[in-house]
Amino acid sequence: MKLISYQHSGRSSFGAVVGDRVVDLARHLPGVPDLAALIANPEKLAQAKLLAANATADHALDEVRLDPVIPAPGKIICVGINYVAHAEEAGRKVGNYPVIFQRFAETLLAHNAPLVRPAVSKEFDFEAELAVVIGKGGSHIAPEDAMEHVAGYTCFNDASIRDWQFHTHQYGMGKTFRSTGALGPWLVTADEITDYRELQVRGILNGEQMQEGSLSELAFDIPHLISYVSQALDWNPGDILATGTPSGIGFKRTPPIFLKPGDVFEVVISQIGTLSNPVIDEV
Amino acid sequence: MKLISYQHSGRSSFGAVVGDRVVDLARHLPGVPDLAALIANPEKLAQAKLLAANATADHALDEVRLDPVIPAPGKIICVGINYVAHAEEAGRKVGNYPVIFQRFAETLLAHNAPLVRPAVSKEFDFEAELAVVIGKGGSHIAPEDAMEHVAGYTCFNDASIRDWQFHTHQYGMGKTFRSTGALGPWLVTADEITDYRELQVRGILNGEQMQEGSLSELAFDIPHLISYVSQALDWNPGDILATGTPSGIGFKRTPPIFLKPGDVFEVVISQIGTLSNPVIDEV
Repeated sequence: MKLISYQHSGRSSFGAVVGDRVVDLARHLPGVPDLAALIANPEKLAQAKLLAANATADHALDEVRLDPVIPAPGKIICVGINYVAHAEEAGRKVGNYPVIFQRFAETLLAHNAPLVRPAVSKEFDFEAELAVVIGKGGSHIAPEDAMEHVAGYTCFNDASIRDWQFHTHQYGMGKTFRSTGALGPWLVTADEITDYRELQVRGILNGEQMQEGSLSELAFDIPHLISYVSQALDWNPGDILATGTPSGIGFKRTPPIFLKPGDVFEVVISQIGTLSNPVIDEV
Repeated sequence: MKLISYQHSGRSSFGAVVGDRVVDLARHLPGVPDLAALIANPEKLAQAKLLAANATADHALDEVRLDPVIPAPGKIICVGINYVAHAEEAGRKVGNYPVIFQRFAETLLAHNAPLVRPAVSKEFDFEAELAVVIGKGGSHIAPEDAMEHVAGYTCFNDASIRDWQFHTHQYGMGKTFRSTGALGPWLVTADEITDYRELQVRGILNGEQMQEGSLSELAFDIPHLISYVSQALDWNPGDILATGTPSGIGFKRTPPIFLKPGDVFEVVISQIGTLSNPVIDEV
């Protein structure tokens, strides 16, 4: 099942995408406030699946305005240097622990919404990634139990301001600029993905492939990432884990390639879909 | 004026502390949902000041259960290595830009609530800091305008899990463990602090002073920190800026000192107050 958060006629809702139509699940499932609440509730999720299969659709997909898949996740945990080839291009080695950093939820944007090149920098770079959406919360999760906590998957562009990322030894600011974290278009539920390691991530700039990687290449796999973070923080429904970007990012190319107004960047993940965002300048 | 967020009889509220009494501002100011909304609204804030001066108090201070001053700030921006003497003990130099990292709001705890030493580490360290609470939001704020955006000040303990902080080159995980960010006891409004550079921060463990610094020693002062971040992110009412910790932290001592169950750590800031938290083990 493909799940979205969206706006229609000025109302926030969430639904299931069936072909080019949308079943408004908020209307059918009163008491479930948003998509994060739906994926936290196995019973309601099973009802949603029946509705997606049987209910008459409420909207055409192109009539709704998508929100980020989870519009306001409690937290977004990002992983750096998690593909060996990308670690090499970044001049880093994969160590004993995952490189964790954070993005504020307020920086998210939806499929088709513009990525905003900031006024203070022209070093605006793309990072195509698979994002995991957490369904069942928990703490101190063993790797062997971790996949039970995955509600599904979506595409993520962790667009980064490279000069600000390296203002100091901490990435801090450059990884969480306003309107730079694209998340969408939809969540594909975990039951449809037999083995996430078979997924292929590609980053495509104006039709030309820049990045490619297989989830089988992750230095720290999804069960271990979920487990590691869960020692420090409780996972909650709707939390996002961004699994890292494969090689091919713009600023390590010769000459470097940066995003500029008029560009379109796509994150394409097999079995998941395509997240597409145009680039504009901050005004 | 001293402002708090609190619980009383199972209800969330916010109020003004007058001596050892509390005026329930939520009761007097219908339509203002929480303290972040109050400090965003100069007119309501002026009403609150009149109420604090004139209204009959609703509770004794020791009858309410404090929440973190802002219970769920949109973001918490932390600054590292911002006192020169602390930079030296950490083996770092102050560079051209502030070292920025982030803490998730879900890790906050109130005055008197226990700091939780995590199950996975015994390297649980204290960091006494002055926290700035943002009142008026904004982006691209010039340093000379920045102080207009400060609603007030409170005490912060940015308790850190040192081994996890240095698992990799990014602080990421070790700075945002559950139940490790103490914020309180109250917000002192900016009108009561003639010059924040006169404030003194002390960190006191079981009655013994561990840390001391003056806000006049900041490598990057509050106007420049607010301005820097505002290039990347919009400041919103209730957002927290933690200004960094002075020298004297536990893990740079010989032998190192770490927080353990039974300890009490206090952050004492002149003109602001004392934030006190006991330490317990995660269960």
